[in-house]
Amino acid sequence: MKKIKVGVIGTGFIGPTHIEAIRRIGFAEVVAIAGNGQESTERKAAELGIPRAYGDYRDLLKDDEVEVVHNCTPNHLHFPINKEIVLAGKHVLSEKPLAMSSEESAELLALAKEHKVVHGVCFNYRQFPIVKQLASMIKKEQLGKVNLVHGSYLQDWMLYETDYNWRLAPEVGGKSRTVADIGSHWCDTVQYVIGKKIVEVFADLATVIPVRKKPSSTGETFGGQSPVDTAYEDIPINTEDYASVLVHFEDGTRGVFTVSQVSAGRKNRLSFEVNGSQQSAQWNQEEPEKLWIGHRDKPNEILMADPSLFADEAKSAIHHPGGHNEGWPDAMKNMMINFYSFIRDGKDPHSDETPFATFEDGHISMCITDAILRSHEQQKWISVESIKEVIL
Amino acid sequence: MKKIKVGVIGTGFIGPTHIEAIRRIGFAEVVAIAGNGQESTERKAAELGIPRAYGDYRDLLKDDEVEVVHNCTPNHLHFPINKEIVLAGKHVLSEKPLAMSSEESAELLALAKEHKVVHGVCFNYRQFPIVKQLASMIKKEQLGKVNLVHGSYLQDWMLYETDYNWRLAPEVGGKSRTVADIGSHWCDTVQYVIGKKIVEVFADLATVIPVRKKPSSTGETFGGQSPVDTAYEDIPINTEDYASVLVHFEDGTRGVFTVSQVSAGRKNRLSFEVNGSQQSAQWNQEEPEKLWIGHRDKPNEILMADPSLFADEAKSAIHHPGGHNEGWPDAMKNMMINFYSFIRDGKDPHSDETPFATFEDGHISMCITDAILRSHEQQKWISVESIKEVIL
Amino acid sequence: MKKIKVGVIGTGFIGPTHIEAIRRIGFAEVVAIAGNGQESTERKAAELGIPRAYGDYRDLLKDDEVEVVHNCTPNHLHFPINKEIVLAGKHVLSEKPLAMSSEESAELLALAKEHKVVHGVCFNYRQFPIVKQLASMIKKEQLGKVNLVHGSYLQDWMLYETDYNWRLAPEVGGKSRTVADIGSHWCDTVQYVIGKKIVEVFADLATVIPVRKKPSSTGETFGGQSPVDTAYEDIPINTEDYASVLVHFEDGTRGVFTVSQVSAGRKNRLSFEVNGSQQSAQWNQEEPEKLWIGHRDKPNEILMADPSLFADEAKSAIHHPGGHNEGWPDAMKNMMINFYSFIRDGKDPHSDETPFATFEDGHISMCITDAILRSHEQQKWISVESIKEVIL
Amino acid sequence: MKKIKVGVIGTGFIGPTHIEAIRRIGFAEVVAIAGNGQESTERKAAELGIPRAYGDYRDLLKDDEVEVVHNCTPNHLHFPINKEIVLAGKHVLSEKPLAMSSEESAELLALAKEHKVVHGVCFNYRQFPIVKQLASMIKKEQLGKVNLVHGSYLQDWMLYETDYNWRLAPEVGGKSRTVADIGSHWCDTVQYVIGKKIVEVFADLATVIPVRKKPSSTGETFGGQSPVDTAYEDIPINTEDYASVLVHFEDGTRGVFTVSQVSAGRKNRLSFEVNGSQQSAQWNQEEPEKLWIGHRDKPNEILMADPSLFADEAKSAIHHPGGHNEGWPDAMKNMMINFYSFIRDGKDPHSDETPFATFEDGHISMCITDAILRSHEQQKWISVESIKEVIL
Repeated sequence: MKKIKVGVIGTGFIGPTHIEAIRRIGFAEVVAIAGNGQESTERKAAELGIPRAYGDYRDLLKDDEVEVVHNCTPNHLHFPINKEIVLAGKHVLSEKPLAMSSEESAELLALAKEHKVVHGVCFNYRQFPIVKQLASMIKKEQLGKVNLVHGSYLQDWMLYETDYNWRLAPEVGGKSRTVADIGSHWCDTVQYVIGKKIVEVFADLATVIPVRKKPSSTGETFGGQSPVDTAYEDIPINTEDYASVLVHFEDGTRGVFTVSQVSAGRKNRLSFEVNGSQQSAQWNQEEPEKLWIGHRDKPNEILMADPSLFADEAKSAIHHPGGHNEGWPDAMKNMMINFYSFIRDGKDPHSDETPFATFEDGHISMCITDAILRSHEQQKWISVESIKEVIL
Repeated sequence: MKKIKVGVIGTGFIGPTHIEAIRRIGFAEVVAIAGNGQESTERKAAELGIPRAYGDYRDLLKDDEVEVVHNCTPNHLHFPINKEIVLAGKHVLSEKPLAMSSEESAELLALAKEHKVVHGVCFNYRQFPIVKQLASMIKKEQLGKVNLVHGSYLQDWMLYETDYNWRLAPEVGGKSRTVADIGSHWCDTVQYVIGKKIVEVFADLATVIPVRKKPSSTGETFGGQSPVDTAYEDIPINTEDYASVLVHFEDGTRGVFTVSQVSAGRKNRLSFEVNGSQQSAQWNQEEPEKLWIGHRDKPNEILMADPSLFADEAKSAIHHPGGHNEGWPDAMKNMMINFYSFIRDGKDPHSDETPFATFEDGHISMCITDAILRSHEQQKWISVESIKEVIL
Repeated sequence: MKKIKVGVIGTGFIGPTHIEAIRRIGFAEVVAIAGNGQESTERKAAELGIPRAYGDYRDLLKDDEVEVVHNCTPNHLHFPINKEIVLAGKHVLSEKPLAMSSEESAELLALAKEHKVVHGVCFNYRQFPIVKQLASMIKKEQLGKVNLVHGSYLQDWMLYETDYNWRLAPEVGGKSRTVADIGSHWCDTVQYVIGKKIVEVFADLATVIPVRKKPSSTGETFGGQSPVDTAYEDIPINTEDYASVLVHFEDGTRGVFTVSQVSAGRKNRLSFEVNGSQQSAQWNQEEPEKLWIGHRDKPNEILMADPSLFADEAKSAIHHPGGHNEGWPDAMKNMMINFYSFIRDGKDPHSDETPFATFEDGHISMCITDAILRSHEQQKWISVESIKEVIL
Repeated sequence: MKKIKVGVIGTGFIGPTHIEAIRRIGFAEVVAIAGNGQESTERKAAELGIPRAYGDYRDLLKDDEVEVVHNCTPNHLHFPINKEIVLAGKHVLSEKPLAMSSEESAELLALAKEHKVVHGVCFNYRQFPIVKQLASMIKKEQLGKVNLVHGSYLQDWMLYETDYNWRLAPEVGGKSRTVADIGSHWCDTVQYVIGKKIVEVFADLATVIPVRKKPSSTGETFGGQSPVDTAYEDIPINTEDYASVLVHFEDGTRGVFTVSQVSAGRKNRLSFEVNGSQQSAQWNQEEPEKLWIGHRDKPNEILMADPSLFADEAKSAIHHPGGHNEGWPDAMKNMMINFYSFIRDGKDPHSDETPFATFEDGHISMCITDAILRSHEQQKWISVESIKEVIL
């Protein structure tokens, strides 16, 4: 069996996560990685058991054996590298956000169509079995007509004023932080689940910690020891720690979501509740194996992920019998199964249904982020206008 | 021991609930009730074991033995009857909302001050032990500085288009329904817990079911049997089933809440999460015995209501050892303990701290509801202006 | 309306709890209490708002107005006082255990029958709405044939070696402690729920803390302050902190339960799971408003206590709409409603169905405790023999 | 980087699960699988992307490149094939149970020692991050002295009398079914967590469904359609559906567990609670990311799997930041990381600490199962005698 040959750009946290997920599916193999500098990339390749290492990603793009490239770099490099991947005629799976602005994402989408490559964006929360099952239930109108959607995405990794990270710098992380980083996941997941697009937003953003303390270079940390006299530099912050956003969907469905990176005790709590005219459903990513289903006239239900209780079209997203819970890495695996099956079967993202988020979804996400920022500035409802042009 | 003598106006669901709660405290007794018509009220009095029955509430107000009157009538009667109670010089505990408009509630507050009666409004969710404990934790800054508050109050009793109730008619229930009925509880509870007032709101309201089916008088129901051919009349609805409201508190704390009466499976789910600079806390009234406490650097906690784990000032709100959960009726009992102790001790609501919601809180609630309605109409942020005048 | 007149013996924790529960039902009133010494009892009566105080319970038994007597004294007084109450021809509600041995409880049961009084024992966990609902579901075979029952009753109030209490002394608390105190509740509740009696037991008991430290009288505690130099006396303990008991029910149903008073973090966690041939159910008293219902072929359910979702015969045990949770005090109220309605309606516990635990149940409980102690001593299965004689 | 070469015998459900887990770790690769018949095994190899396929496992054992063999066959083949693997001088990871009797498992253990191979048994529940963390907490005495351990392992896949499976036949599945299948996991996990061995047991077993209906060969099922007139054959069953077992650990710690395969709604619910002299802990495999920690004097805790909250020695078992839950497949991956790192580092299971269950643990498990069966037959406490000889 010939395996699909893959290259991965970026060797930080998320790159190896992609590599492991690809390995699980059996019909694709990572033949090369690209990092920053030849020596360190070779060390990483040896550690990960990857045959070839490139100190410059451009060399990976010239590797003829590589058919698919994963872009696992920091945010500000997504656009230029995605562009080069497409121009190199290779299929591409990009980390989100797709770009730094909706102009850039529009350009990438057009380019990808033109060059006829398969394009994906790593909106991985769609790939949880329970999320697929809920999308199927809603499509079949088991909840009745969806009327309301509300939820939040809460984290605590930026809680303290001494929490500092490259994402805080707008030139690297982008002009929106919390909305772009995690609000984008909430919107993508919810739009996927209810099968409707957000067309209008009203937003309230806040920078809860307006000045953060960045460890100065002079206060060095030795060998993992906790520094005794770290010196800090005060850095004014202008990206948001928090947002609450009222949303209207294309058919008038109402919703609201809150995102925060300063909510102590919440690690990665993406959650939402859908209220339909007959039933409700609620999901929380920190307990990904459960779906709460709400009823008026009978007891509420807790659906544990279990192939024997799932709809046919959601069953394939779960790989073990009930009670053998699959988690976050398994959703990544599902993403790879879906993305690589699509490539293997020679499908076209512009005519076939894509069981993964594409550059189109990545562009829609950018447009929503733009509208949210504008709404907060202008303190009024803003249309997510570009959606129309994309969909049509 | 002389007991405080009480009269209760209104014999529907909530009146008897008040009566039972009063009986539990031991130092107050209900000597009279007033209903609609002498005969039916006498029957109710016999059933409840109350000595005197009045077919007209005005007669109860003339009963000299009665020192305190509970107003347990429908919304549109709150204002006129509260006024008469105060004018009769009796202490008053009113069901919420205090009136039909903030003008009326302002008048009642002024009148109550003038006549030097003790005045309370039945915002009962303040009276849960865990809520008191959380308020105490926040006052002592155990959560650090409170930055964010978000939550919802969800019910499902208006889910179907055939759900019909007097509260739907604006002339009886008021021009706001879901916000006034349950949003008011959310705001009162949260303001109490964090010790800050809401000063600005932006609201999005929706009437999810714009036409409801009211059972016509011709389709009669015999002896509890389910009607075979109920005829329905189409009634256009102009009060909201849903609202999401962005809020700003007096010190800049941000928040948002969602209220809905069309969320299948949610019966009376008032919940909120507070994110402080050190810790978070989350409470859900459907599991009232638990408080989730969120941490960044250690495991999250679940505090079960337990006097041995409570702060001194919250301990008195809980009457049994840990694991003997108290619920909704016990919060009502706490309200009565606090209200009647205050009267027994001869305290003055304008100089002493009131361990219950007063007409001032009732008025503030009316002002917030007014601001929410106005914000939705005008699609802009609206100040809760009257708060200033009340507080000063 | 004439109210039933009640006297309560015992003014410790549980006496006032009974009084409050009686007051809530409206058709019975506590006219007298009896304590230890005239002066302190009068003070207590004034505090509780009770008209008459007796320093000696024998005087309360001579009070002709008193029709019903509650025995709320420590364990070793249950038998002699219950006997006197019955001999005085008054109806009796006794705290559990009914007596100190099954010989005594058999005598009380015979005596109560002879004197034709209504007799009850305070096994209150039967009185939770969800427990009634589950009993009804099982009676209707909604779970299919019940095959297995397993669970536990865990507390932590005896966790530390410095925890000391009168119940530790066998002459006051009885020769069994944890089994008699809380195991008895587990057995009564489970037998009620599945409608079957335990006929055989195999037990393993342990005194986890074999020597406890009793505060000596010389180490005084002043005004609630924590004592600085408490002196302790070493007391060897010979009653069990823990037991696990295998049980067989009359029809062959299997079961097992664990009781412990040394399980940190468990306050009053009575829980059990019933596995039927079609469905399962699980209840935990620390979350009393929920019933987990387990299914093979559809999602599991969480039934929240809600009259609109309950069977007709369980509905009356719940007094508020769904989401207004009732708790431990409300189960006590249900007990009083059931006990006093039975008396009011002139029913006979030997011919009418008793919606509360009687002296017969109290005697059965004593027999099970006896069998458990004997099984542990003899390390073999022991029949709960006396059950047969009682039932026939 | 040279990868360790692996062969897998058995291509049913669990074989491919092993293969996927091995692939994730990056430094081992599956070069061959063996199944039943050349053609079907080749098809399976192509599907899984494995280079070599053997229709007979003996040929795989002769493959010189293969260094490690996984035995993923049905129970009755574990002993003979494990023996041949060891005799072939290859390292071995066997599915559990290790053999069909403790005589066989003793023989395998002796043989593996003699042939100096690395030997493992797939007791995978040790490999969950939270389980490792709890074992570390207990080792450091954070719970104080462990006094009690109780829990259960419940499933529902044998609930109906029409549920039929090869495991029901003693000659294939073994003379114990539920105890051997899932009780063995409970005992291994608990012994690992508290670091103590079970030395004495008292058991009560039951065959809840004594006659099952086996689909006859004449009632064919076409193409996944549900059979209209399946004919069934009545098969008497003599292996247990249920057991409750009282256990004593080597230092006198008490415990009890229940296993059942007929508990509706429980899919794979391995759970246990440990009560120490200072703290308690509870884990449930159906919510594998959470550990409940019980306290007497402060709120209970819920530890979510999170490397930043873990002890150093448990941290390596978790591969993502908090809130990115890992599940059952990740525990399998941990098993492979630990097993293959041990091999890669040239360690010896008889002198180095093994971070996985070995044939010794597999043999201990067989001895416990034997003791449980004997206790049930003889209705008395039975020592797990062979443990002594193994440990010494």
